[in-house]
Amino acid sequence: MAGMKQAESSTKSLVLNALQGQSVSRPPIWLMRQAGRYLPEYRALRARARSFLDLCYTPELAFEITMQPVRRFGMDAAILFSDILLVADALGCAVTFVEGVGPKLEPVRSTADRARLRPAADAKKLAPVYATIRALKHELPAETALIGFAGAPWTVAAYMVEGEGSKEFYAARAFARREPAAFTGLIELLTEATIEHLRAQIGAGADVLQLFDSWAGVLPESEFRRWCQEPVARIVRALKEEHSDVPIIAFPRGAGLHLPSFADAVPVDGLSLDTTVPVAALRRTLPRLCLQGNLDPVALLAGGAGALEEAERIVAALASGPFIFNLGHGVLPETDPAAVAALVAHVRSLQLPCVPSHGGERDAC
Amino acid sequence: MAGMKQAESSTKSLVLNALQGQSVSRPPIWLMRQAGRYLPEYRALRARARSFLDLCYTPELAFEITMQPVRRFGMDAAILFSDILLVADALGCAVTFVEGVGPKLEPVRSTADRARLRPAADAKKLAPVYATIRALKHELPAETALIGFAGAPWTVAAYMVEGEGSKEFYAARAFARREPAAFTGLIELLTEATIEHLRAQIGAGADVLQLFDSWAGVLPESEFRRWCQEPVARIVRALKEEHSDVPIIAFPRGAGLHLPSFADAVPVDGLSLDTTVPVAALRRTLPRLCLQGNLDPVALLAGGAGALEEAERIVAALASGPFIFNLGHGVLPETDPAAVAALVAHVRSLQLPCVPSHGGERDAC
Repeated sequence: MAGMKQAESSTKSLVLNALQGQSVSRPPIWLMRQAGRYLPEYRALRARARSFLDLCYTPELAFEITMQPVRRFGMDAAILFSDILLVADALGCAVTFVEGVGPKLEPVRSTADRARLRPAADAKKLAPVYATIRALKHELPAETALIGFAGAPWTVAAYMVEGEGSKEFYAARAFARREPAAFTGLIELLTEATIEHLRAQIGAGADVLQLFDSWAGVLPESEFRRWCQEPVARIVRALKEEHSDVPIIAFPRGAGLHLPSFADAVPVDGLSLDTTVPVAALRRTLPRLCLQGNLDPVALLAGGAGALEEAERIVAALASGPFIFNLGHGVLPETDPAAVAALVAHVRSLQLPCVPSHGGERDAC
Repeated sequence: MAGMKQAESSTKSLVLNALQGQSVSRPPIWLMRQAGRYLPEYRALRARARSFLDLCYTPELAFEITMQPVRRFGMDAAILFSDILLVADALGCAVTFVEGVGPKLEPVRSTADRARLRPAADAKKLAPVYATIRALKHELPAETALIGFAGAPWTVAAYMVEGEGSKEFYAARAFARREPAAFTGLIELLTEATIEHLRAQIGAGADVLQLFDSWAGVLPESEFRRWCQEPVARIVRALKEEHSDVPIIAFPRGAGLHLPSFADAVPVDGLSLDTTVPVAALRRTLPRLCLQGNLDPVALLAGGAGALEEAERIVAALASGPFIFNLGHGVLPETDPAAVAALVAHVRSLQLPCVPSHGGERDAC
């Protein structure tokens, strides 16, 4: 963590302030999958494109989709419209998205499959992502943080081995145990490719990075450390060496009881909490780390006063330290955009208690 | 917890001793889904039956399947061959098991659907389950504990609303938020039916009960308390009133950071830990509760020395208090029975440290 403390500037993003441990005038808010299927303007663009991947690989479209929720709701951050499986695709593990089913990949199930992958991601294939970021950086006002992202190596590897989504990722977990050398090689390949991909996103203008480890929650302790914690720590350290000013948020979804040791071991600036995390308890365990989360997307789907009351409880539980309001998982496709608008307005209206900033000194507030 | 301390008897089950907080001469072991598809003798019986439910509802078959792993491996406990969805079926929510897919139920998605359910489970429908238990109790030696079980209300309700298995049970969670009165009614109906079902299992001869809350891990804190913790606490209290001598194990799978407060709030004799729980840390948090778990079924699937080494680590982490060795989830169908035999033999051979028993006094050891 930077630990640096500056006076909050009106043009600086509240999200960046929170990640640097500074006090903020109101709760910063953005939502995972804020750009996506619940928005009619997204569905209109999607209908005109050949495939989901075309959206990701076409800068004009990815730019537009990224901007849609920022224009509609004035979110405090824009998150690049992209997908965590682009790195797999660029490594030669072809990805397709089957409508209503999810991603399908050519499974990596042997040392030979592993050997057929490229030694590094195809930079040309990923170039449109960086072009999208450059266009976004040019467009976005300074108060809207631009978040780049990647999948964490375990999660991307799990999809590559499994060949698709899964409840438990048994095939990936069995491969990791039966072919530890091949699996370690795959994780190392992904770790290096992810560092390069995020470095290029910083180079193109990303203000913040988030690492999505969506399937961190299926692993036992020793494998969580080996496949989730250590690779993410390596990525964060590599990026911090050159870009100590770019905050990094980790999202080890489902990490549960591993969260405190994860936060100790990985020098992240923020920790994104999934829906299941009891936020008040974790706030006490990690009083100074910027915590992000964690409204149940189902509460937002159900909408109404219930969603707003839960949002209040989360803000009250997190506000004794630095935090960013978010969901505990992505916006669900059936969500009413009006419920999102109501949530954003309500969270922004919430008063924050006068608390010491990250540096431990009390700000004027 | 009974807190009662007796000298360990050679004919008394090690599983019962552990659940009563007594020292044991060697680690007790049984495995979730020890009776099932990985055994060729199970597959032979399954091939002759019309359906999976037929197996559950035919005492001769359910008896035989329950006994198969006890005969083959000499497990320290037999767990009734049955299914957590039988209670749903007996309440009038018809269940079928589609081969290779999983359970399908007539979804309960409205107050009207809820109203069509029976006011209590059809006792005639469940009678074969109790007949199976009576036959098992007659057959099993005293050193083999007979475990009866049920699904916890949240998990059964989640299947009833969703109509099938799911990664996230969004339909069930949305119904719970949109129709809280109907969902509360469903949970209460299941709570009462589960108490009756377990009471009848005790009456038929079950020595121990386990409550499976397989989908406890998808809920946020407030809903975890309301839909998982409170109904399970109510069931445990109701059963303890009449049968304080029958130990109850809860398995709130995926409960993660909620486990310590769950253990505080629910007067169970044992807590079954899923694969993801860091056992050494939880042992420190709950030094006196009987903990059960938690080898990764994928480690057993991969077999070899790796599985045995992990089993050793788990025993070493748990053995400072009462414990039962188990998996963190059910045996996978592709598991080699020889790997199970090797695991059972190895766990039984492990030396236990000389530790105080649950009562805090040091036993001769």
